[in-house]
Order: sequence, then C-alpha cells, then structure tokens
Amino acid sequence: MSDALLDAVKNGIMSVDLGRQLRVGMPQSPNHPQFWHTLPRRHGDMVRADGGSAANDMITTGTHVGTHIDALAHVSQDGLLYGGADAGQSCLGGKYVEHGVHTIEPMIRRGVLLDAAGFLGQEVLDGGYEITVEDLQGCLAAQHVELREGDVVLIRSGWGRKFDEGTAYVGAESGVPGISEAGAQWLAEQRIHAAGADSIAFERLAPGGGHSALPAHRVFLVENGIYIIEALDLEELARQRTFEFTFVLVPLNIYGATGSPVRPLALVAA
Amino acid sequence: MSDALLDAVKNGIMSVDLGRQLRVGMPQSPNHPQFWHTLPRRHGDMVRADGGSAANDMITTGTHVGTHIDALAHVSQDGLLYGGADAGQSCLGGKYVEHGVHTIEPMIRRGVLLDAAGFLGQEVLDGGYEITVEDLQGCLAAQHVELREGDVVLIRSGWGRKFDEGTAYVGAESGVPGISEAGAQWLAEQRIHAAGADSIAFERLAPGGGHSALPAHRVFLVENGIYIIEALDLEELARQRTFEFTFVLVPLNIYGATGSPVRPLALVAA
Amino acid sequence: MSDALLDAVKNGIMSVDLGRQLRVGMPQSPNHPQFWHTLPRRHGDMVRADGGSAANDMITTGTHVGTHIDALAHVSQDGLLYGGADAGQSCLGGKYVEHGVHTIEPMIRRGVLLDAAGFLGQEVLDGGYEITVEDLQGCLAAQHVELREGDVVLIRSGWGRKFDEGTAYVGAESGVPGISEAGAQWLAEQRIHAAGADSIAFERLAPGGGHSALPAHRVFLVENGIYIIEALDLEELARQRTFEFTFVLVPLNIYGATGSPVRPLALVAA
Amino acid sequence: MSDALLDAVKNGIMSVDLGRQLRVGMPQSPNHPQFWHTLPRRHGDMVRADGGSAANDMITTGTHVGTHIDALAHVSQDGLLYGGADAGQSCLGGKYVEHGVHTIEPMIRRGVLLDAAGFLGQEVLDGGYEITVEDLQGCLAAQHVELREGDVVLIRSGWGRKFDEGTAYVGAESGVPGISEAGAQWLAEQRIHAAGADSIAFERLAPGGGHSALPAHRVFLVENGIYIIEALDLEELARQRTFEFTFVLVPLNIYGATGSPVRPLALVAA
Repeated sequence: MSDALLDAVKNGIMSVDLGRQLRVGMPQSPNHPQFWHTLPRRHGDMVRADGGSAANDMITTGTHVGTHIDALAHVSQDGLLYGGADAGQSCLGGKYVEHGVHTIEPMIRRGVLLDAAGFLGQEVLDGGYEITVEDLQGCLAAQHVELREGDVVLIRSGWGRKFDEGTAYVGAESGVPGISEAGAQWLAEQRIHAAGADSIAFERLAPGGGHSALPAHRVFLVENGIYIIEALDLEELARQRTFEFTFVLVPLNIYGATGSPVRPLALVAA
Repeated sequence: MSDALLDAVKNGIMSVDLGRQLRVGMPQSPNHPQFWHTLPRRHGDMVRADGGSAANDMITTGTHVGTHIDALAHVSQDGLLYGGADAGQSCLGGKYVEHGVHTIEPMIRRGVLLDAAGFLGQEVLDGGYEITVEDLQGCLAAQHVELREGDVVLIRSGWGRKFDEGTAYVGAESGVPGISEAGAQWLAEQRIHAAGADSIAFERLAPGGGHSALPAHRVFLVENGIYIIEALDLEELARQRTFEFTFVLVPLNIYGATGSPVRPLALVAA
Repeated sequence: MSDALLDAVKNGIMSVDLGRQLRVGMPQSPNHPQFWHTLPRRHGDMVRADGGSAANDMITTGTHVGTHIDALAHVSQDGLLYGGADAGQSCLGGKYVEHGVHTIEPMIRRGVLLDAAGFLGQEVLDGGYEITVEDLQGCLAAQHVELREGDVVLIRSGWGRKFDEGTAYVGAESGVPGISEAGAQWLAEQRIHAAGADSIAFERLAPGGGHSALPAHRVFLVENGIYIIEALDLEELARQRTFEFTFVLVPLNIYGATGSPVRPLALVAA
Repeated sequence: MSDALLDAVKNGIMSVDLGRQLRVGMPQSPNHPQFWHTLPRRHGDMVRADGGSAANDMITTGTHVGTHIDALAHVSQDGLLYGGADAGQSCLGGKYVEHGVHTIEPMIRRGVLLDAAGFLGQEVLDGGYEITVEDLQGCLAAQHVELREGDVVLIRSGWGRKFDEGTAYVGAESGVPGISEAGAQWLAEQRIHAAGADSIAFERLAPGGGHSALPAHRVFLVENGIYIIEALDLEELARQRTFEFTFVLVPLNIYGATGSPVRPLALVAA
C-alpha cells in the first residue's frame, strides 16, 4: 500500500510541541478547579508475589487549565449558544449534549502562526495591548503567508514567556495582550476553523479588568462556531520562523464537557 | 512552501477515532480512581452585565481509565523500572521524574492492526484465550502486512465490543483474551515502539485471575521500554480492513504521572 | 464556673461511634462520586533543612457517601423543596443557597435507637422488608422508651452487618429493609428532628427496584423538613441495649451542598 | 433512665460554632489541594416518573483546608513520627496506618480559650508576633482560668478576622502571629490534649518565611502527641468571654489520612 501521508511520515517529520506541561502549581485562572496530580499507589506499596508492582495516579482538574481548547458550549450570549441553541436546554442530565467538547473533531489541518510580537519588534507585547486588524494583516504580509478557509491560526503575543512566572502570566492587574472584537471579526471573515494564543484567556484583557468582558470569545464561540485554544507555547515555533505547518489537536472525548486540556503539535516534513 | 505532509493533508485524510468516549459510569478497573465529570458552573449561574456567561467543568480521574497509555514508570519488577532505574528513587517529591508519562514523545508513526479475532474467524475471542505467536504471525500473513522497527501494533481480540456492557468488559470472572508473555516477547523482538489492544488490561487475563499476574506488562514496560495502550476501539478499523496507517497519539504532558488518557487516531490518505 | 454539661463531661462519658470508616473501595451508591483518598506528599518527599517533613492528603468524594446526612436540598418533589421553595431558584451560582447542608445546625439532642431487627428477633431483616408502624410502636414498647418532639431516631434493621461485604450492602438485587411511606409519616407526626438507619438509602428498597422510588425521603425531606442520616453503624449501640442517649452530629459546613459525610456519636454518662 | 449528660442537654445548651464555612475560593495554603465543591446533578437534571428528583455533590479537597485537625502522622522529624515510629514504614499501601487521622478519638473535653489578642489589648496581633510563655500565663491569670491535664487549648491571636480577606489570611509576606517553640513546650508540660488557633498554620510564622520552619508542630505532633487544630473561628467565643467550655470535635474517620476538616463546637449549659 502506498499512502502519501505514511510516505511523508516515513521520510521524517519534525514536531514542535505547543502544549504546556501539566504541573501542580502552574498558573491558571482561579475560575476553574485547580490542576492537581497525586500518586495513590507508588512502587512498593503493594508488591505481588512475583515481584511486580504498579504505580498509579489521581488527577483533579478543570478543563480550562493548562493548554486547552474551548468547546462551543463554553460561552453563551443572552442565553444562546452557537447556532441559536438554547443554553439551558443544551444541558441534559448535567452534560452539554449540544456543542460539548465531544463534538469537536480531532484537527489535522493547515496551521498558521501569526507572530505579532515578532512583527511589532517586541519580545512581549504590553499587558492590555490590543492586536489590531492592521497588525494581523501586516504580520501576514511580513511573513509571506496567507490565510485559507479552514485554517487554525495561532497568534503569538510573547506573553507565553511569562508562563513560568506564575501569577504574572494570569495578568489580573497588568492586563494581557491579544486580539479583541475587531481582530476576531476579521479572522472569522477569513473562515478559519480555530484560533489560539499563548495567553491564558486568548484575547486582550484590560489592565485590572479581569474576565469581565470577553468579546472575542463571543465572536468566535457564539457567533461563528470557531474554537479557541489557550495557553499555547509558541516560543519554539516563532524561534524557528515556522509560519505554516500541519496542526494536530486531539481533544479528550469527554461527554458533555465545555473544554479539554490538549497538547497540540505543529508538524513539518523534515 | 511545499511540504509533503501538508500536501497530503490538503489532498484529504480519513481519520478513524480509536479512543473511547469518557463518560461517567463507563467500565474501568477498580484499582484506579473513577472517572467523574461535573459542571461547577452552568450557563445562567453567573451572567455578566453584557449578557455573556461561561460554563465550566471539573474532572476527577485516574490516568489508567478510558483509552489510555501506560508510561514505563507504571510497572516495576523486583524494585526496578526499565533500564534498571530504581523504582523508589525514580519518584521524587511525589512524581515519577524517571519514565513518567511526560517522557513519552507524541507518536506519529506507522501503525499496524493485527485483527486476531478476524483472523481466527470469531466475533470476540473467548475470555482467557491467549493469542499466540502463531496467531500473530498467521494474522500478519493473512493480512499481507509485515512489522517494522518502530511500529505501533494494535491487536484486536474483539473484546472491545463489550465496552458498552459495563462490568462484562472488565472481565474479572470471565477472563479476557489477549497476548501473554510469549506474544509480548516476540513483538519485542520485532522492535516495535508501542502495542495496544481493545481490552482493559491489554494482555490475556485468566478467568477469575484478575490482575494477579501481568507478564506482558513486564516484558514491554520493564524489560523493553515498549509502551502499552489499553481500551482502544478497534472495531471501525477492522471493519474497514485498514491494517496499515499513520498512528497518532499525543499523551497529556502530566509531569511525573504513570499514564495518561489518550485519544489515538488512525489516519490514511483519502 | 460550674457548668452542668462540663460537670457531666468531667464525671465521664461513654461514647459510641456511629460512623463508618471512610476507606477507598467501601460500598456506596454508584449515583455519587466515589470516595477516594491519596497522599500527594509522603514523609521523605520533601525534607526541610532542619529534618522536618510533612505529609498530606487529597480527597475526592460525593457527599452522600459513607455515613452521611441529607440536607433538605437533596430531594425535590414536583420542582419544589421543603417549604415550597422552588428547586431551580434555590440553586444560585451552582450552590443550594436554600436548604443546603450549611443550613443544618449541629445536633446535640436526645437520640433514640429503635432496634427493629432485635424486636423482630432477627439478626438482619430481609432485603425488601418494610418496617411497619406497628413494628415501630411495638419496638418502642418493648424497649420502654417513648419518642419526644425534637428527637433523633435511629432505626436498626441489622443490614449494617453487610457493610463489610461490599456490593451486598448496596442491595440492588436483594432489596434493602427499612421503613417506607407509612413509617415516615408516623415518625413525622411525632415531630422528630432527624431519622437515621444502618442502610445505604435509609428507607426500604424493593428487590431489584433500586432507587426508583423513595417515598420516605419525600415525606421527611420535602414535606416535613426532617433530616435523614444514612449508613450508620448501629451494631454496638444495639449490643449495649443503649436505647436512649445524647446524639451528637456535626455536618461539615459546606456552602450550598446537598449533604455531608458525618461521624455521629451516641453519648451516655458513665 | 436518668443521665446527667442528657439532663444537661434537656436543660439547654448554647453552642458556638468554631469552624469556618467551606467555600470555593476561601484562603488556604497552596501546599494542599484546593477545596472545590460542585453539583454533578441538580434538581431537574433527572426527574423520576413520580415527580421526584435528587441533587448531589462532588468535593475535592486537601484535608489541611478550612478548619482542620492535624493527625500525628502529618509531621515527622528526622524520619520519625511520634513515639519513634518510622515515618516510612508507618505508611502501608499508601495509608498512614500509624498515627493516621483514623486514630484520633472524637473529643468531648474541657476546652479553654486563651484570648491572647484580648489580653494584649489588640484587635489583631501583628504578623510575626510570637505569643510568649509570659503572654500565655498572663492571659490565664487575667481570665481567671487554669489549665488541666487533658484540656483542649484554643489560642486567639485575632488573625482569624482576616479570614474573609483571602490571601492576607495566609500571611506569606506579613507573617502570622502565634506561639512558637517555647509556648508549645510550656503547653506540652501542662499535658494538654490538643491545641488550636485562629490562624492557618497554628504557630507563629516569620514575615516572608512561609512554612520553612514549624517548631511548635514538631513539639506537639512529634515529641508530645498533642493534636493541632487550625483556622478556627474564635471571634464569637472571645466576644462572649467564654473562656471555659465543653469542646466537641469529631474528625472524619478517614483511614490513613494525615488530617481532616472539622467543625468544632464550644458548648456551655444555658
């Protein structure tokens, strides 16, 4: 059997990991249950007669924690989800049967990195800086790539560099850079499939404003059915100047959930 | 930019989902913390002034639950992990820093399905049936595929058809079909990268025997550094007779854990 | 200062523990998140420079697990909680602000044991046996105690002896003995404060019927505001023939929850 | 039957709740898994044919969270627990079988409040202030109470007033007032049974020092087998000037855990 994909794999693929490591104590929004991992059983706790032993884990976590994807069921506006689904009735038996994360197809798609920080000549954009439509267009031109329908677009503000600093990454007081309503509107017009960023809430947060208003979430999740990916690690991709790649993202198939931790990959043929 | 992988993606890819949906109440081993999902916040619980609202999740789970991968740190023999690492000292601060699931590279590799049930002309192999080396070799010959170094090998016993039956899938009394020490030894000699099956413990369990002895786990995880994937859904792949494919598996990058829920994919060019 | 209570304490109190030990794997209803306990940090994981070290825990659990109390918010009938409170509106921001377990006052009250199994001359009443009003009255007479307004009444069916047998205690197929609608109605007329039993669902369950109908719950929680305590250990109290005592129960003060694990005590002056 | 205790109860008891309400977001040490509560099932999610419905809960939490008690297994010194038990061997199968919280007897004992803040004429003692032996002795004299063997001693620094302020209560930067090694030594010489305070770590924390050294924990838990109770609410008791009372504390009987959330009561005859 000859398979173009398998041939490409055989010839070698370089993979860039876009996910953050899940560690107890990593920065996350206080709105979501904290990630915690512990070992109920360690080697030696129970050893079988033949000398074998098994260790195991217990995880407790929100789904909007670490690098993660928002299902369309995550956000409603005026009581409605995407496509006009009633937000109350979409929840049956304590599960979002409509637009839950189980409805997101695994993604193997063209991915495009928009290195906004690089384009604007900064290491990290300022807290509260709004990445404008002009920034997005200028960045695309400078990078010599165009957007196509169905793409996954990853926007780098450089804010991901703060991930290891802890609460600074959350940015409650400083604000966080990112696109806002206008940028989301323009990207939606390009008919992209999903958008991601290297910050915790994807979009621009005003200094001191917290999550009090999230217009890009509304534009993407409620009005256009475009998925949002948060807390990506885009540093290596930017360093390599890999602006176009095969984007792979496989959400956990959690019935009725509003999101999932993910570990997306950017792949290029070697 | 021309990229063989991206070209293959552009020309179309068919994807088969090999992961089970994560649902409260699904069958799992009682040795591991039960999967549970709940919505702390539903739409309407807190509506912002602008009419927007967000729903979120809380998950509690073991990592050896649903479709999942075993890290090498999962099993020890006589106090040692793979490569002779001391099982006690590999655990620092409550994390398996050696051979934890964070050390598993995402897999984009050649995958091979060995449909043992199909080869043996049965819908579901009997509980406790041991898939022998002869079965594996005969199956490969009948399917006209060969194994190559670095492959991921998925063995179908048909037991996955019982997943929706609940405790029958666990098979405590009936036993569960699968390979055992001999099959694992032979597969290890082929230098495969990982092996998976459609049953809960991957390998053959004797009727009434439970998990009292797991020789294939020892051969793979401890002696050969070969990963094990459990509770796969191999029904669609077998139905399509797709015996060779690009296998994609991206474990969650949980620092120091012994396993991770996963949602593997089998991809073929359209 | 002279204090009658403190004097009684000084003179000696005998205490009988009515709570079950919380252990991973104990029997519980599958409707509720499973109790799990694990040690994230053990001694030696992180030792301070001065040689000190601390170990800690992580618990995940439902609240209707082990010996526990039902808050009035646990059950609704036709959309209403006790006192006619709207069940939907009583839940604000994902918390039962009305009738949640945080509204239960700690109990230090007269307690009465009704040893129905002893009265009926059986070790354990049959699965599905309904303890009738006549049984309750006959038991009181035989024990030479009367009920008073505000009492906590504990009804022993002997079923608690099955707790260590695991799933037999849940009784899905066998049914479970206990009072039903008539007994609850009569007890409510005695104006008791709370009622408990040594079974998992307090009231009689028909063989094979599961929790499909729980009329005593409705009578107590919805119609009369009487709390229900489940999975008590009443064996020692019955053995001692201590039919009257000071009952102490202090629920965890969990804001907005529908129940709490508890460890009630029966106290008598020495 | 006449029972001095029951008579005291019949004549009326006033109860002061010394426990903090368990709420998502309350201040707690980042060393312990965060308290989280959510409702998997709300009324209306699943309504039975007869119009009845049940709501339930899921809790995830550390045990050293909210008002809680430390078991002796919580702290070791130079590899040893209280009584010279080996800290490593005391943990069997992932449970502290020695000195776990399941070994703490429910307490119904004489309790004494030492209102150190009141004695020192301050609303809240300064962060980092060490309550000295002289303070303890002076406070007892001023309050006209003496300590007796077996007492539970509650020390009020006033820091509990900060509980509702959130992170200020944790006091990482400010330090926290409390007794230290000398005070613990003196209290141990009085042969008390347990000691509590209104702060998160019971003992004095130096400004900026965090939990880097906890000598009073060592003196109490490791050297003298005296339990420690943290994050008490002592405001009402101090307001009433109730310095002597019946102290009731019933830990959850969690097999092998190092602590338990509790809701202690102070009782006085009416």
